[in-house]
Amino acid sequence: MAEILKGKPVADAIKADVALRAERMKAAGRQPMLAIVRAGSREDDIAYENRVIRNCGEVNIETVNITFPADVSHGIFTDALRSLSEDKGIHGILVLRPLPDQIDSGEAGMLIRANKDVDCMNPENLRKVFTGDASGISPCTPEAVIEILKFYGYPIRGKNVVIVNRSLVLGRPLSMLFLAEDATVTVCHSRTEKLSEITSGADILVSGVGRPEYFGREFVSPDMTVIDVGINFTEKGMCGDMKYDEVRDIVSAISPVPGGIGTITSAILLRHLIESVELGI
Amino acid sequence: MAEILKGKPVADAIKADVALRAERMKAAGRQPMLAIVRAGSREDDIAYENRVIRNCGEVNIETVNITFPADVSHGIFTDALRSLSEDKGIHGILVLRPLPDQIDSGEAGMLIRANKDVDCMNPENLRKVFTGDASGISPCTPEAVIEILKFYGYPIRGKNVVIVNRSLVLGRPLSMLFLAEDATVTVCHSRTEKLSEITSGADILVSGVGRPEYFGREFVSPDMTVIDVGINFTEKGMCGDMKYDEVRDIVSAISPVPGGIGTITSAILLRHLIESVELGI
Repeated sequence: MAEILKGKPVADAIKADVALRAERMKAAGRQPMLAIVRAGSREDDIAYENRVIRNCGEVNIETVNITFPADVSHGIFTDALRSLSEDKGIHGILVLRPLPDQIDSGEAGMLIRANKDVDCMNPENLRKVFTGDASGISPCTPEAVIEILKFYGYPIRGKNVVIVNRSLVLGRPLSMLFLAEDATVTVCHSRTEKLSEITSGADILVSGVGRPEYFGREFVSPDMTVIDVGINFTEKGMCGDMKYDEVRDIVSAISPVPGGIGTITSAILLRHLIESVELGI
Repeated sequence: MAEILKGKPVADAIKADVALRAERMKAAGRQPMLAIVRAGSREDDIAYENRVIRNCGEVNIETVNITFPADVSHGIFTDALRSLSEDKGIHGILVLRPLPDQIDSGEAGMLIRANKDVDCMNPENLRKVFTGDASGISPCTPEAVIEILKFYGYPIRGKNVVIVNRSLVLGRPLSMLFLAEDATVTVCHSRTEKLSEITSGADILVSGVGRPEYFGREFVSPDMTVIDVGINFTEKGMCGDMKYDEVRDIVSAISPVPGGIGTITSAILLRHLIESVELGI
């Protein structure tokens, strides 16, 4: 039976570290402050926002909410991002996405100053991920994947890593993070032929296809570590990309959904805020 | 016996296209103009510069040489790049590298305006390669690899591509170009374990390890297309990363060294200049 790589202990360790660093900053007269910018009132945006506020409250980070109606003009929205980027009391800016159509999210990303860009929307931070420059802020989810492997002591160097996702929020940046850790990296996607042959040869398999219970026994093998980044909603509730019960009986370790990577991603956001305070000094 | 993927026909086709486009621009009153910037008098820099000037002459592109002594100050060198970036008569800027130590090549790259950046030194162009944004200018060598496969009609979509190189001038950007062409891409490097097992499973193998005749029969298999990007100098002369005679007898197609990718890379630089003229309008 596989080791279950739960997200909570990883997230708790990150949060404990963040809380301590935030407390020290507060004592030194710098209250870590996250601005959360939202346009409209989509239910999942509000749910995410509330979760972020609660998480921040647990670790000595204060939040300020800037909320616009869904039909806010591009000019007013981007002016707000400009002001927040210049505001010395704000250390990080989280923009809830997707943005309404009238707002150019590419331009919005460029207006978030790189050292306040906790969710990696600024192209300068993305560029640093690709060039292996550790001075930037990585996207949260890829960083969470590396974090969970390190936390549970699974070596990465020299391992064959297969990532099934080629998006800019997961597969592409994650392939660069794994290369920086000396892994051999294969990126697969919807056009990949003989996918199960490739995935079953992996030492570490990362899936982000967004199809509920897509990967079964033919895609995995013993001694494999599986990180399931899929978040899918079905009638039975939330699940990952893996046929969890079937895969768990074969592989050596697997992260569950829910309770896996998603939990860590939110904690990484908090750490980015603390790093932003340090970068802003 | 393998098909030999010679670079010359590919380069000739690119040059013919470039010459025609340059002639039209000239007729319309815009003489395509490349600035070549050199610091010092290293022999290989001068040889490369002369090759570029000769190539440009063949395709209706004019060149202007800006040459500094090896001990030129950072300020004077970067001021020249600023002026060239603003000069409306200059369409592309080629800086010979490596630069002397006193010049920060990262800063130099940022000073070359993105639309004149024929050799992809500006981070904005590199970012576009990584995000799959086709509006930028790619590094020449990765583009040459894609070009040779398309010229000889080797399909890329859905194929397993293995690249042995993770540098910023070859492996990383090339992996992104292959992903954009719907290939499944594996990036290997010096820390990769069981390299021959991985390479021998490829449909397309791209090598850039810079070790003369490193890859022999155990690294390849029939039906494979091999693109050798290695340029190595030995007592016997110039050679690639492949044991050419040994590998040629096994695989389905192979690019030679010399006479392969290198030839195409120089032609790609000319095409970038023409694209820069178009981008600058």
